Amino acid sequence: MADDDPLSDVGEHAFLDALCRRLRNGQGRFSLRIAIGPGDDAAVVWPSGRPLVMTTDALVEGVHFRSGWLSPAELGARAALVNLSDLAAMAAEPTNALLAVTAPSSFQARQLDALIDGCAAALAEHGAALVGGNLSRSPLLTLTLTAIGELHGEPLRRDTARPGDRLFVSGTLGDASAALSFLLRDERPPEVLRSRWVSPTPRLELARRLAGAGVRTGLDLSDGLLVDTGHLCRASGVGARLRLDHLPLSAAVRALDGRGVGFAIPGGEDYELLLAVSPQLVERITGIARDLGTPLHEIGEIIEGSKVELMGEDGRPLGPVEGFDHFHQAEVRP
Amino acid sequence: MADDDPLSDVGEHAFLDALCRRLRNGQGRFSLRIAIGPGDDAAVVWPSGRPLVMTTDALVEGVHFRSGWLSPAELGARAALVNLSDLAAMAAEPTNALLAVTAPSSFQARQLDALIDGCAAALAEHGAALVGGNLSRSPLLTLTLTAIGELHGEPLRRDTARPGDRLFVSGTLGDASAALSFLLRDERPPEVLRSRWVSPTPRLELARRLAGAGVRTGLDLSDGLLVDTGHLCRASGVGARLRLDHLPLSAAVRALDGRGVGFAIPGGEDYELLLAVSPQLVERITGIARDLGTPLHEIGEIIEGSKVELMGEDGRPLGPVEGFDHFHQAEVRP
Repeated sequence: MADDDPLSDVGEHAFLDALCRRLRNGQGRFSLRIAIGPGDDAAVVWPSGRPLVMTTDALVEGVHFRSGWLSPAELGARAALVNLSDLAAMAAEPTNALLAVTAPSSFQARQLDALIDGCAAALAEHGAALVGGNLSRSPLLTLTLTAIGELHGEPLRRDTARPGDRLFVSGTLGDASAALSFLLRDERPPEVLRSRWVSPTPRLELARRLAGAGVRTGLDLSDGLLVDTGHLCRASGVGARLRLDHLPLSAAVRALDGRGVGFAIPGGEDYELLLAVSPQLVERITGIARDLGTPLHEIGEIIEGSKVELMGEDGRPLGPVEGFDHFHQAEVRP
Repeated sequence: MADDDPLSDVGEHAFLDALCRRLRNGQGRFSLRIAIGPGDDAAVVWPSGRPLVMTTDALVEGVHFRSGWLSPAELGARAALVNLSDLAAMAAEPTNALLAVTAPSSFQARQLDALIDGCAAALAEHGAALVGGNLSRSPLLTLTLTAIGELHGEPLRRDTARPGDRLFVSGTLGDASAALSFLLRDERPPEVLRSRWVSPTPRLELARRLAGAGVRTGLDLSDGLLVDTGHLCRASGVGARLRLDHLPLSAAVRALDGRGVGFAIPGGEDYELLLAVSPQLVERITGIARDLGTPLHEIGEIIEGSKVELMGEDGRPLGPVEGFDHFHQAEVRP
């Protein structure tokens, strides 16, 4: 088959045969844990007897990305990374994944190869193997990845935050949504922002180390700081206070929006960890973050109640916000 | 929220909160194997130390079904059943599943509830729990289910057929594609055919018992007898001979098409098992099928070479067919 043939010419089965051979060849380092890899009705993997963590997330053309925003390889990698971030948010170690793709028949075999290879490479970089999947025709390009991981200790949960816990976030906030603001205007974002949207960093090692140190509560920021803090509060039956002047902002975000509140608070898809940490663990976890070279910033605290309060730079509250469905971006712009 | 509100009014998070509560409440009997169920970043399940089998399959509106062909509950159940059939084809015991749905914002909360409940109920009927998933907006309704199972012995593989093996199929062939032929003409199929397309029977118990008896080779018929026999042959490096007059046909299919070759040979989505069985096991497996009350018919044999031969009722070959990409339905109509 010629690589730039559309899928309708190559045929699903010829394409899948070639793909399975390629994926199996790349799985030497995983072979002890894969009894049957791609190509059979299902994959057989051999876990080590630990609890398994499983998650699924979809990227839909026209909803999560537009044609042209990402190369096929970047798109495949992004499908892997956003799911690995969910495994990180459970303190799990990734092991395997399945990728279900729907694509128009005009999609080229070469593009699909690049997409799947990009996905497999991103998984492999974090210790996981692509062991199977599904390919369907559809007018829309969608990627639905299911990732499986093992738990080597206690997980990070959403329902264990307690009043008095300090709130920490890894990395910086708002970069991905700042990048999106360019993309939505059909402009190329500055590369430093674009790469943060295209290739989020699943905080796998940080999460495992923190969970090992006794941190019990955390999630990854996919819907935005305000919404995800609301999720944490609702699951734990608590409220939270976020300090605007403590939000970690990259220089690129700060250059666009001095206090970052247009991007850092409502903006989704940062895939950083939000952690609720009991005060006696604070010194230990900042030490772990320093060891790993991963920025970790205290941005607020868990309080009694059920509201998420935003504190301005002057220490004045900006008013409570109850959650996503009642949330309008303008409300958090002081 | 009112049940007939569109999803855009109910809001993703309010819907998911209610859904997670409902799913968790239904999981009493699975609770020993579920450490964290729906609602966190990912689910944590506790397998029993056996090899795990995982598979994913998608149903796409306009490709696999049209609006109106299936109720939301039937659609959700079908997503479960076609994946459970893949687990059956590995002789695995289903344990857990994740469901990723994309739906237009006009889709009603009530419809989505019915869809997910239908999926969870079909899984529960076969011993598996819905432990998580994903919900995205999209112009198209799609369901991508990922099912996980455990292997209690050897799996059924595709690459272990040997010349001399006898080919068996469970159930009857062509019912689903006969039903589809009505649906594609916007006619209601006879109920006996419709139910075979809407609710395929994953042959889980039969597969596990046969694998336990020493059968090593099998797959489920999703693409159609001819195409799937080709898959088996290609994976095993063998050929096959199928006997037209041995194909098991339901009375309903026979009434539409005397020899069933219009439906039974090319028709997909039967989700019956195709098995290659060494001759010394034949007596044992027919006994098992009789015990279970599941029809099992010998329909041909594995031969040297790489071709799938069709033998007519008079014992005359109808000519070799090499596979799907070269396959045209007219070719197998004698």
